[in-house]
Amino acid sequence: MDIQPHTPSPAEALAAIHERIRRTPVLHCDALDALIGARIAFKAEHLQHTGSFKFRGASFAVSRLPEGTRAVATHSSGNHGAALAAAARDRGMQACVVMPENAVGVKIEAVRANGGEVVFCKPTQAAREAGLAARVADGHVAVPPYDHPDIIAGQGTVALELLAQVPDLDVIIAPIGGGGLLAGITRAVAEHTPQVEVIGAEPAAADDAWRSLRDGKRVESHQPDTIADGLRALIGVRNFEILAAGKIEILTADESEIIESMLLLWRHLKATVEPSAALPLAVMRAQPERFAGRRVGVVLSGGNVDLDPVRVAFNPGAGL
Amino acid sequence: MDIQPHTPSPAEALAAIHERIRRTPVLHCDALDALIGARIAFKAEHLQHTGSFKFRGASFAVSRLPEGTRAVATHSSGNHGAALAAAARDRGMQACVVMPENAVGVKIEAVRANGGEVVFCKPTQAAREAGLAARVADGHVAVPPYDHPDIIAGQGTVALELLAQVPDLDVIIAPIGGGGLLAGITRAVAEHTPQVEVIGAEPAAADDAWRSLRDGKRVESHQPDTIADGLRALIGVRNFEILAAGKIEILTADESEIIESMLLLWRHLKATVEPSAALPLAVMRAQPERFAGRRVGVVLSGGNVDLDPVRVAFNPGAGL
Repeated sequence: MDIQPHTPSPAEALAAIHERIRRTPVLHCDALDALIGARIAFKAEHLQHTGSFKFRGASFAVSRLPEGTRAVATHSSGNHGAALAAAARDRGMQACVVMPENAVGVKIEAVRANGGEVVFCKPTQAAREAGLAARVADGHVAVPPYDHPDIIAGQGTVALELLAQVPDLDVIIAPIGGGGLLAGITRAVAEHTPQVEVIGAEPAAADDAWRSLRDGKRVESHQPDTIADGLRALIGVRNFEILAAGKIEILTADESEIIESMLLLWRHLKATVEPSAALPLAVMRAQPERFAGRRVGVVLSGGNVDLDPVRVAFNPGAGL
Repeated sequence: MDIQPHTPSPAEALAAIHERIRRTPVLHCDALDALIGARIAFKAEHLQHTGSFKFRGASFAVSRLPEGTRAVATHSSGNHGAALAAAARDRGMQACVVMPENAVGVKIEAVRANGGEVVFCKPTQAAREAGLAARVADGHVAVPPYDHPDIIAGQGTVALELLAQVPDLDVIIAPIGGGGLLAGITRAVAEHTPQVEVIGAEPAAADDAWRSLRDGKRVESHQPDTIADGLRALIGVRNFEILAAGKIEILTADESEIIESMLLLWRHLKATVEPSAALPLAVMRAQPERFAGRRVGVVLSGGNVDLDPVRVAFNPGAGL
């Protein structure tokens, strides 16, 4: 694995950020254990600051910027934007988030609620990158969402906490989109508990990581069509290398399994998690025999779900 | 207040059941504090065994039954049924719950999942009482849902825990349906922290407690039409007397405020609570100036919400 000397480890990241992040609780649920036949430890990152694990990586990346840095920027339609805004504010920096003009309202509000400036762009990758380049030309330091050593190390802190909270895990399952979370977990496990299996859970409708690892070659474009809006990104270059070197397996789930699993988490854990966070349960439900009798750690990656469809469902008049 | 000598106190109840119930956590949320301008402590009874505070009263009532009691029964369309089933199973007793044939599936499943037997009846008060009478004739001991001294004392334990967890509260707000919870809180506060204000929160569309206390005379029939299915019962005779003696104020909220408040709790606390649990936030949102700067304890009464409308909202094809 090509980790350069200056690449920080998840343990270094945890030392740097542990006073700023929440050590989120681990949740258990007899009903879900019975459903799978496993003992499941749910790491509640939907209760992390800004409602997702993204605050870990953003917080560490910001902590590593040179003294005197005054402003950061990124492009994001999702949780990384709010996380970066909050992490920057924590350090007295300004944050600007380039967002596609069709981003959902609740995510736009979240950036602003955390003190970030929102700049809209056309909903294309080119426009997002151009928008970010303009901010960088302006003096902002770019903090990318997942394909960066500091982000990877920061996300890996979630595995270190989980392994400390539940020392006898057999396997950890986490969702994969861009792959920063899964790569960070892979690094943390490799360095501390190599006997623990690491599995990625990906929507079948956005299965570029699964295909990339199957073929040993990173897929470079796709057209994701999944409700799991946090998992639509292509796997990052660094993350692909880390997962390939670690021989990490990816399991996929279809859309109806994702929605049912999300609702099972709402119902039994009473945890309002977003669709992306349901992927690990969805892949377990598809092949429970594989997890029977095992101790499984699951990262509930976030809880920022658009509740507008729910409002209409409970109150049909409100939509008129 | 006419409390008979044998009426147990919430403190006695807590001593009897503290090893069987969960000491649920207290949740805080900056976004909701900012919305009201208050400091709110949310007592997370949606995380109680069987997903509601009802397990407290049921557990205490069952603990008080004579040794050798083998079977209990109640009628319930909601949380008391599952709570009694679980409490009975804990003590090695059987439980039979008479449920209206139109009860929602998730509540029927909850009774069975906790080892209870379900007997269906027509959806009328008369049929429910006849069904229960038949079980009692059969040798079951009836455990009523709210209008009983043991149930009241058991529900009051939630206030004792909350007051210990957050010692400087100015006010506690809890939803009111049959009134067992609010009467129990009233007793606990009167006995331990009489300086704390107690407020009931009731759907405007099921406002019999509000009218009863206004008129000094218990309303004896009504036609509730509220999404808060846990709050449709008439206030119980004992509970009315306790609230009237304590001069407890009731505030009401309309249906759209209840739904919006429930979704605010889902969104900001990431807590999947049921509509009834949203009443305290709903009444605070209606007059935030009244709570500005105060320390408010809120009982999140339960988390057993029918998610079928949500499934359809996220996955329109599933409804076809």
